[in-house]
Amino acid sequence: MIRAARGDAIDRHPVWFMRQAGRSLPEYRKVREGITMLDSCVQPELAAEITLQPIRRLDVDAAVLFSDIVVPLFLAGVDVEIAPGVGPVINKPIRSAADVAELPDLDPAALAPVSEAISLIVEELGPKPLIGFAGAPFTLASYLVEGQPSRDHLTTKALMFSDPDTWHALLAWAARVSTTFLRVQGEAGASALQLFDSWVGTLSLPVYDEYVAPHSTDVLNGVADLGLPRIHFGTKTSELLVAMRACGADVIGVDDRTPLSVAIKRLGSDIPVQGNIDPAMLFTPWPMLQAHVDEILRAGRAAPGHIVNLGHGVPPTADPDVLARIVEYVHQVPVQL
Amino acid sequence: MIRAARGDAIDRHPVWFMRQAGRSLPEYRKVREGITMLDSCVQPELAAEITLQPIRRLDVDAAVLFSDIVVPLFLAGVDVEIAPGVGPVINKPIRSAADVAELPDLDPAALAPVSEAISLIVEELGPKPLIGFAGAPFTLASYLVEGQPSRDHLTTKALMFSDPDTWHALLAWAARVSTTFLRVQGEAGASALQLFDSWVGTLSLPVYDEYVAPHSTDVLNGVADLGLPRIHFGTKTSELLVAMRACGADVIGVDDRTPLSVAIKRLGSDIPVQGNIDPAMLFTPWPMLQAHVDEILRAGRAAPGHIVNLGHGVPPTADPDVLARIVEYVHQVPVQL
Repeated sequence: MIRAARGDAIDRHPVWFMRQAGRSLPEYRKVREGITMLDSCVQPELAAEITLQPIRRLDVDAAVLFSDIVVPLFLAGVDVEIAPGVGPVINKPIRSAADVAELPDLDPAALAPVSEAISLIVEELGPKPLIGFAGAPFTLASYLVEGQPSRDHLTTKALMFSDPDTWHALLAWAARVSTTFLRVQGEAGASALQLFDSWVGTLSLPVYDEYVAPHSTDVLNGVADLGLPRIHFGTKTSELLVAMRACGADVIGVDDRTPLSVAIKRLGSDIPVQGNIDPAMLFTPWPMLQAHVDEILRAGRAAPGHIVNLGHGVPPTADPDVLARIVEYVHQVPVQL
Repeated sequence: MIRAARGDAIDRHPVWFMRQAGRSLPEYRKVREGITMLDSCVQPELAAEITLQPIRRLDVDAAVLFSDIVVPLFLAGVDVEIAPGVGPVINKPIRSAADVAELPDLDPAALAPVSEAISLIVEELGPKPLIGFAGAPFTLASYLVEGQPSRDHLTTKALMFSDPDTWHALLAWAARVSTTFLRVQGEAGASALQLFDSWVGTLSLPVYDEYVAPHSTDVLNGVADLGLPRIHFGTKTSELLVAMRACGADVIGVDDRTPLSVAIKRLGSDIPVQGNIDPAMLFTPWPMLQAHVDEILRAGRAAPGHIVNLGHGVPPTADPDVLARIVEYVHQVPVQL
């Protein structure tokens, strides 16, 4: 997986799944019984166990830390909870310069539970890589401003447009949080880092370039010295792929709304990509899913490296056996040089 | 507005707003007290009153029928309600061939309340046009399959991929509903027709072309003989604009995620466009909003016709005075030939 991320020669196609550690696995649902999402992220043994569950079951080529985009906000002291069926809820949304000024800076020491989890994971993983991740500044900010997941991010964009100084101060804070969160993961033993800008597809390219890209660039630059591949991903980002790369990514994650061949061409066919099996295809008969995977493998050959993944997270209703079958199949398909 | 939709010379820029009749107006909130959304759509006097409220207040160049995408489903006899704060809820989602076979066809006579509302509206409007609208087949189907608004349309896409026969039967049914709904509106006196594919931005272009476009084409072709401008619009459709045009649209609506100049260029600069003020800009100081409107007017000159609108519906929290100011301003900006 790391070789593909660097564009080096590989002897088999690497594959992992965003949200592979999570609700689709019965063993996950069992260990999560009676414990909140955030608590499960900050208990090192539990977070390690959940991270490792899909490794034991699926033969994927990388683990991804079981965590959440808002975990560093939580550990910084922001009043956030993850409400079941809703998502992250910020009890006092950030809407003014004064609100931003009061945001607590994230002390790397507060991330000790994350470092401890990673130590436990890396010990069991052996040579298999662990991917660390963080939410990108825009996505963190949109949670902080909206107070909860939003369809159109109207309040976020209104703040951005009407009070750019406050906006940039907020994104600078969020960039420091993201950077710290990623650095701690890298220093604790993660082998690659993924920056998730989950909601950025709500923006046009000129708006992204002006209000977001400088801060995502700060995050990616801020971890460059670790020498780990930096993956940059968001959904609905077909128009933003080139700009997201320009922030300093080593690998671009492609969602399932953009055909992989189109994304690679748009990116210039000179950067490794990750993606983009349509999660809806997990619910189709195997021959159809196999043909879809074949098409993605074929398209991926136009890039210098290709990490097979879904175009979005594993749906909670996905059948783990289908994920296992994809891994088995992808590993069997010959790598054409 | 109709001249702009046809690409004919105009003497001032036409402007209206998607969802101009609705929750942003206090007079709307007043008349809706104690009455459900669907009931208010099928009481002709009330639907007419609500449709006309923004005409009296905003000086917009067109009325748009106060209705909802699911109204024709409701009048066809589908068990649907609009749950406050949620949106349309289908009590028995459509997931199988048998479910599709049981869907009741829409008798044009069942749309009498809509025709009556339009007669009342057109009488008061005089020469000002009324825009009729319908949900496009994909959007209707996604409500029917998911049972409620969805972020990723996973169930819809799973049905589409795994059971294409059922999918195409469902979309053919939905296309008949959309066509009937639009035809009744045109025959009752609407001067233009807008086909809303609200959720289609969830699809990649190849998926759209294979599973959706033929049915949207049937709808647009099915009303072509009425001779009314056909506007085609969806959000997050930057990759789909050309394909949506190819369905038979006379005007393409552009959402605020795509700069209007980019959309016009992508479309070939030879079809009128509608859009695309960012609704978030309604919450910024006037000089910033004015500059944004100026930029959109300037970009619109590259198309043979441009109808000023938002890139999405009026947010419930918008200030109607801001909308009125936009109309006043747009009407003052000279038309450059």
